Amino acid sequence: MTLLARAALCAALLMSWSGAALAQALPSWNDGPAKTAIETFVKKVSDPASPDFVRPEERIAVFDNDGTLWVEQPMYTQLAFALERVKALAPQHPEWRQNPVLKAAIDGDMKTLAAAGEKGIIELVMVTHAGSTPADFHKIVASWLDEARHPRFKRKYTELVYQPMLELLAYLRDNGFTTYIVSGGGIEFMRPWADKVYGVPPAQVVGSSIKTRFDMVDGKPTLVREPSMNFIDDGPGKPVGINQHIGQRPIAAFGNSDGDLQMLQWTTAGEGPRFGLIVHHTDAEREYAYDRQSSVGRLDKALDLAAGQGWTVVDMKKDWKTIFAPAK
Amino acid sequence: MTLLARAALCAALLMSWSGAALAQALPSWNDGPAKTAIETFVKKVSDPASPDFVRPEERIAVFDNDGTLWVEQPMYTQLAFALERVKALAPQHPEWRQNPVLKAAIDGDMKTLAAAGEKGIIELVMVTHAGSTPADFHKIVASWLDEARHPRFKRKYTELVYQPMLELLAYLRDNGFTTYIVSGGGIEFMRPWADKVYGVPPAQVVGSSIKTRFDMVDGKPTLVREPSMNFIDDGPGKPVGINQHIGQRPIAAFGNSDGDLQMLQWTTAGEGPRFGLIVHHTDAEREYAYDRQSSVGRLDKALDLAAGQGWTVVDMKKDWKTIFAPAK
Repeated sequence: MTLLARAALCAALLMSWSGAALAQALPSWNDGPAKTAIETFVKKVSDPASPDFVRPEERIAVFDNDGTLWVEQPMYTQLAFALERVKALAPQHPEWRQNPVLKAAIDGDMKTLAAAGEKGIIELVMVTHAGSTPADFHKIVASWLDEARHPRFKRKYTELVYQPMLELLAYLRDNGFTTYIVSGGGIEFMRPWADKVYGVPPAQVVGSSIKTRFDMVDGKPTLVREPSMNFIDDGPGKPVGINQHIGQRPIAAFGNSDGDLQMLQWTTAGEGPRFGLIVHHTDAEREYAYDRQSSVGRLDKALDLAAGQGWTVVDMKKDWKTIFAPAK
Repeated sequence: MTLLARAALCAALLMSWSGAALAQALPSWNDGPAKTAIETFVKKVSDPASPDFVRPEERIAVFDNDGTLWVEQPMYTQLAFALERVKALAPQHPEWRQNPVLKAAIDGDMKTLAAAGEKGIIELVMVTHAGSTPADFHKIVASWLDEARHPRFKRKYTELVYQPMLELLAYLRDNGFTTYIVSGGGIEFMRPWADKVYGVPPAQVVGSSIKTRFDMVDGKPTLVREPSMNFIDDGPGKPVGINQHIGQRPIAAFGNSDGDLQMLQWTTAGEGPRFGLIVHHTDAEREYAYDRQSSVGRLDKALDLAAGQGWTVVDMKKDWKTIFAPAK
């Protein structure tokens, strides 16, 4: 066989293999408009012969986390963590009882805490997430996630990630995309496990943060987490966080709530091919059904705008064969 | 030839090629302790058989920019840019003349400006870097860098990058490192050209920043740069910026001034093999000679600490065969 013939055979073999691989890329997605929209977009931006071809360096996809990649009902996982932390740390912080929000959290008075709204939650998160180094905080988070179980599904939170979305992350990366998480949740709450669970390394996690300061502690250079807000990566903060961390406008954005609206708008308003997708929670049986009236993950404005903006809306009940990743 | 024989031959060919490539990896470095220290470190962390092997995901190297990767004398390039911008924009901002620092900058009164110190420079940078979108600001920077020439070398600033450091960046990447810039300079001042010049993409550039806000402008989702400081990525800010953007402690840090001290300390205080390097500007003939007395890029404390900390100090005059990258 000549070298050219060998090369041609090789190419044919590789192409048929890659075709088979592609056909199986999203096995947990039912055939339908959502799956077709994803595949059509990915093919047109990654095929060098396509007029919509996008260089791999520009193939950036951003994903919300809570409600987009993992379960967020009946409360944000990070809030469940903060509620346990506040009780565990309360004995060392008698002054917390002077603060009505923290007192309510310590006493498990969810009504008062709910009434304090987002401001109350931020306060709770700040004090319970501060005081350690980032490395020690990672250990605290990892160890809590190892122990904690979801109240309804009785499984680890890191197992309550959506299998179709894991496949989507892998499918995008297989096609030359770089995948980022851009979440309202804490950046240091996600980093300890995002690589293992989602294949997203620490530098590709963008999130909310409290302030960190550098200090020499007992002659050792140390970073210390402080009980003061640094950045809120939610709503209009998401495009700002993306710009700060990634420095490029993504070409695809994936979210599930109004907190993702500006990220979807900013991503899809760029020139060239763009893709926006909203996960609509429609499956009360296998997961949860909620949108406009939910205090967690409210989806209202973004749902109204989706059709006009050409964003794909995933109907969880219809579009997903399975919801959660199989138990390991 | 059997398959095994073919594989063995292939391996031998590849190894001899890679050996040759390694031997030539740092051609602009003279043989000496600095070059040896770099090569020894890189080999021991990248050889899977070494007891000091570090997984590629952890092979993170951080580089200061001004004075470490490109020339910073007689003034920071970004300051030269800001001084031209303030004059160009002054007619649209008559209020600037009420501010003594800005008035001095507009009038070219360098004595008053110098007396205003770092605070004055930050003020100047904030107002001259604000008011545009990040994308428009990138165009302004790129176009200025295309026109501007260094007062002594009469070359573009982006040509006044150190050839030995370009080789070092490439050598680290060839050995599985991810290379980041961590600079006191503006993140959006570096991103427009860092990929082309250094091979460092936008998401791997960490720097100082002004605030950015999301807004709908004429119905278009827009990011707007504001004349207010967001983050100063210098001195104790560098480990904080690294933690925020990278989320991991680097194993190697490269700097040239006391502004890099805490980055060097924090990087090299980690467990396992670590590497710190300081570029000492000792070559008045080919570049500049300065350290403890310089107002730009002062190197004093870090130089005192280097030996005790095991940091490599590059003597530019002795260690570098050539200084600048060849003209293109």
